[in-house]
Amino acid sequence: MRFTSETSTDGVREQLFTLGEIPGVLWTPEGATGARPLIVLGHGGGQHKKAPDILARAHRSVTECGFAAVAVDVPGHGDRPPHEEYNRIATENQARVAAGAELAPLIAGFQALVARQTVPEWRAVLDAVRQLAHVGAGPVGYWGISLGCGLGVPFVAAEPRVRAAVLGLGGALAAAEAAARITVPVEFLVQWDDERVPREQGLALFDALASAEKTLHANPGAHGELPAFELEGALRFFARHLA
Amino acid sequence: MRFTSETSTDGVREQLFTLGEIPGVLWTPEGATGARPLIVLGHGGGQHKKAPDILARAHRSVTECGFAAVAVDVPGHGDRPPHEEYNRIATENQARVAAGAELAPLIAGFQALVARQTVPEWRAVLDAVRQLAHVGAGPVGYWGISLGCGLGVPFVAAEPRVRAAVLGLGGALAAAEAAARITVPVEFLVQWDDERVPREQGLALFDALASAEKTLHANPGAHGELPAFELEGALRFFARHLA
Repeated sequence: MRFTSETSTDGVREQLFTLGEIPGVLWTPEGATGARPLIVLGHGGGQHKKAPDILARAHRSVTECGFAAVAVDVPGHGDRPPHEEYNRIATENQARVAAGAELAPLIAGFQALVARQTVPEWRAVLDAVRQLAHVGAGPVGYWGISLGCGLGVPFVAAEPRVRAAVLGLGGALAAAEAAARITVPVEFLVQWDDERVPREQGLALFDALASAEKTLHANPGAHGELPAFELEGALRFFARHLA
Repeated sequence: MRFTSETSTDGVREQLFTLGEIPGVLWTPEGATGARPLIVLGHGGGQHKKAPDILARAHRSVTECGFAAVAVDVPGHGDRPPHEEYNRIATENQARVAAGAELAPLIAGFQALVARQTVPEWRAVLDAVRQLAHVGAGPVGYWGISLGCGLGVPFVAAEPRVRAAVLGLGGALAAAEAAARITVPVEFLVQWDDERVPREQGLALFDALASAEKTLHANPGAHGELPAFELEGALRFFARHLA
């Protein structure tokens, strides 16, 4: 793990790093020492580790809860080089949709493919970050919607260090099998008029989760219109389960 | 309005009152003066104005938010005399269910009947309570699930002083028409395995609400198994909209 830059803003220390080929960013309370809960933030499709919603969540996790937060670029996103195979599949999928194919199964298949790479990458990031003195081996939470859900479900299913997860804007096609292995508390977000994930597929993914405690939060609006107040709800959820 | 007793516990002043034939209870912060937001709490079927969950919500609304809270007994409940007509209908309905009739439409019809009495009663309580110096004419929130939803939907629809409502464990059969006249923010609770309100009827009532901001919170479990953490969620919701 190699740190490449460090800045501080409003009490939040931000460290850019690379772990092998993975570019990432770690946020912690300025001057913090010792172990603390850690939130892993999975960004959306076409986004990156410092997208505005990721930054906002990271900063509030640090300033309001005293947690650490970490995000990395998904392959082919942010500071990572273009990924030839993924690009080829994405282009083929766009052509299929233009020719009348259904979008949701194509997204699902693509996310399942990418997850085979990101699950071990994110687990390696956990290994590395939790060795830092100002992060430590505290409980881990995962937050990710849309692509961050498609990649997050298999990650949370595979990773016993994750104790609670906020997921959503994803469907059962890609992730139902992995969801059935998730037993930690989950807050699951559905956009009621989602044009990318049919409502019944979102509800089916919620149903597939094996967690004894799981809450569905559904709001009117399209895929990109998650209300801002769900950010506060997620912080409360993590505070309740990790703090 | 006539006050019949007054006590204080843990910083919460509790005043029992009657307004005409309506027995009620008002909770405010001990020593409070001046206007503050007011939560109207609608109790469940077979319950009363000081049922444990009503008391818990009232106390937390007072101690954590500085709000006032008020609850009254629904006709035929708590300190009110038995109501002959309602009792007769309830007995008839039990016989119908025993003979194989569907439960939900019978509950819906009964709640719609009772609401014709409780809506004007609750509006009169608002009139009276908001004239008190330690309550005043601040914004009003409504909380009610199950019977408290069946009676609450027509109340919130009729009452412009209510600015936000937590509703749920109710179906569209009784209340869809009134729900379509509700435009204030709503947090709507559904028990995913509700044996009294079929899931699709709960979702249909959520869909019927005309509110631009409405959030569905669904949790696994039966009608009576609402998770305790939804109490905190409701407090945050009211704090956001009324404070």
